[in-house]
Amino acid sequence: MNATTALHAINAERLHGLLTSLARFGALPGGGMDRQALSEEDFQARAWLLEQAQALGCELYTDACANLFIRRPGREALAPVMTGSHIDTQPSGGTLDGCYGVMAGLECLHALNEAGIETRRPIELVVWTNEEGSRFSPGAMGSSAYVQPERLATYREHLDRSGISVGQALDAHAARFAALAQRAAIPAHAFVELHIEQGPVLEQAGVPLGVVSGIQGVRWYQLTCHGAAAHAGTTPMPMRRDAMRLAMASAQRIEALAEGLAGAELRLTFGRWNVHPNAINTIAGQVSFSVDFRHADPAVLAAFDAQLPACLADNVSLEPLFSHAPTAFAPALLEVLEQACQATGLAHLPLRSGAFHDAMYLAGHCPTAMLFVPSRGGISHNPAEFTEPAHLEAGARALAYALVALADQP
Amino acid sequence: MNATTALHAINAERLHGLLTSLARFGALPGGGMDRQALSEEDFQARAWLLEQAQALGCELYTDACANLFIRRPGREALAPVMTGSHIDTQPSGGTLDGCYGVMAGLECLHALNEAGIETRRPIELVVWTNEEGSRFSPGAMGSSAYVQPERLATYREHLDRSGISVGQALDAHAARFAALAQRAAIPAHAFVELHIEQGPVLEQAGVPLGVVSGIQGVRWYQLTCHGAAAHAGTTPMPMRRDAMRLAMASAQRIEALAEGLAGAELRLTFGRWNVHPNAINTIAGQVSFSVDFRHADPAVLAAFDAQLPACLADNVSLEPLFSHAPTAFAPALLEVLEQACQATGLAHLPLRSGAFHDAMYLAGHCPTAMLFVPSRGGISHNPAEFTEPAHLEAGARALAYALVALADQP
Repeated sequence: MNATTALHAINAERLHGLLTSLARFGALPGGGMDRQALSEEDFQARAWLLEQAQALGCELYTDACANLFIRRPGREALAPVMTGSHIDTQPSGGTLDGCYGVMAGLECLHALNEAGIETRRPIELVVWTNEEGSRFSPGAMGSSAYVQPERLATYREHLDRSGISVGQALDAHAARFAALAQRAAIPAHAFVELHIEQGPVLEQAGVPLGVVSGIQGVRWYQLTCHGAAAHAGTTPMPMRRDAMRLAMASAQRIEALAEGLAGAELRLTFGRWNVHPNAINTIAGQVSFSVDFRHADPAVLAAFDAQLPACLADNVSLEPLFSHAPTAFAPALLEVLEQACQATGLAHLPLRSGAFHDAMYLAGHCPTAMLFVPSRGGISHNPAEFTEPAHLEAGARALAYALVALADQP
Repeated sequence: MNATTALHAINAERLHGLLTSLARFGALPGGGMDRQALSEEDFQARAWLLEQAQALGCELYTDACANLFIRRPGREALAPVMTGSHIDTQPSGGTLDGCYGVMAGLECLHALNEAGIETRRPIELVVWTNEEGSRFSPGAMGSSAYVQPERLATYREHLDRSGISVGQALDAHAARFAALAQRAAIPAHAFVELHIEQGPVLEQAGVPLGVVSGIQGVRWYQLTCHGAAAHAGTTPMPMRRDAMRLAMASAQRIEALAEGLAGAELRLTFGRWNVHPNAINTIAGQVSFSVDFRHADPAVLAAFDAQLPACLADNVSLEPLFSHAPTAFAPALLEVLEQACQATGLAHLPLRSGAFHDAMYLAGHCPTAMLFVPSRGGISHNPAEFTEPAHLEAGARALAYALVALADQP
């Protein structure tokens, strides 16, 4: 069977070489990566990648948001099976976040060529532009503009810190890669994204592969607690309006609400705090803090939205910052990914993604799912990001199996 | 009786004029004051004040820390009764903090002259240098150097933000006021400081005068809670080491400890917070916060010091930042101040100062006590600082009575 052959054709050393080669572009002196979207480093990495793809006999395309499509033709003129991720990084990021999915996809193309496998459907490796959102806001720009092209006009206006717009950066990309054919979005048979977990679940379970059933929905709020700044020495407790005490009490009430709704699935974070005037001997007059609540069930998120205002005191104001609905991946595709994991002979478990990925947007375009491999210590967005080579290989093997199995579907 | 005569000789309009005149030096365009210690504005204010004092027939002295002594001679060569405060302000301060005590003292000298009162002891109005500590650290520099002259050598090394040392600023003062006689510290019969409360107690009680029995002692600590920064979406709650949750739990335990020790006298403030990395979607890896605990009883402060470490988790580190013992004012002097308040015919109540004052150091030199008048809304260190003119008058009347009563003591 082609899928099993593809799995066995994966070459761990070649995969390691591809990751190492990509990591040259934007490497930081002390370790780690800084390859911002549409930067010179990104352009050089793309040029290197396109050269590799051309040598493999692939067709190359780009689109209005500088996404790259590397197409290995199939026997029939059917919608392709897509895989891929992103190659932009955080300002002090690692070598695997996004890059692993793209390099593992490239290794799959190598393996298929080497094994002389022909698939019914084309297989396309995709590089989505600006997933991190660290140079240009928002993240997942390329994948969201692919699925909803009407977003692009607004995106083009967004500026980086030096005042360069997305539009200017995209125009520079088009000029630099003028030889690439432009292509609008096309129907796809499936999209499979392979990624490091960026969390501790697989590592702590001692399991090398995760089949991702979906992405949690999220609610971001900012709460502002209004008190009165006053002298820490002269103001008796009953006369205080201490915004920090109000904030701590509010956080407790929010935690009780979220715990009641989410139970063991709770993911609640108060990550960003702003205390004013922030002096040792002054009672805080105003404290703002962020609430990040995630859940896979839209009903739980809706209940949180509905009940949050009532659990806050009058002198606490609430500002919604961001929200995103949960994504449930395609059940038929999850079955194929489970078969692929079984085919590796390694343990795997189902889990949910707490982080956003390009797959979140692709799920609105075609049947979509993800595969995870462990992240050591759950660490990501950090030069210390690391995954065991054996786990990187396992992920690539499962991906190769899944791509070929899907590409041979009628 | 001289003391009662002095009380009635206080002229509220003249007092208002003195405060308004002083407020010209370093007035901010939008209201409020910026008169930093030993600045040009301070020098001009001092020159104006010395001119007033000279016109009243007083003797003028200064010392090695640029404190000013305005002496109204007595009939006998006895230790003087001293009063005064400071005229430096916060960078965006009000017109009353410190200034009120000095101008009320000057009004007392006016009143005594006008009423032709001779006292047995000299009365000295003092301006203490750099009480606020906002240009040069530490605060209460002049009064502490007066009481403990060995402090001065170190103080002279301290720099302001533009790199000017206390030594340079003191030398500039000596050159500017070269005509003043230099005098070392002398024994005093008593020191009485009149000040605005800078807290809400008198206002909320509807009482215009407070007899201050002492100054609370203080403990400042910095706590640092060590966790691990991690992704808010990918990290399940049981696998988190959230430094912010640790900080909130620590604050609760500290509050329980302090409440148990201090009961209704509790003054506990968590005013300064530092959260790292302080991002919405990242669990805090490290959180520091300050603890400000004040109490009048040295035993309570000592118990807090002793029990604090045991109530913190292992991953919380504790750094003492500052401590000061409580000050108990002289009982015999408090009796005279109560009589003075009674002599005004107005309500008064005993209270404790939660803020530091020059009187805290003078208490180590001679019998010392303080009088408070209300602060509207408890607000100080702010252009909105305000006290009813009737309350300013009441304080000056009580001060006049007390100074004369004390100066007539054998």
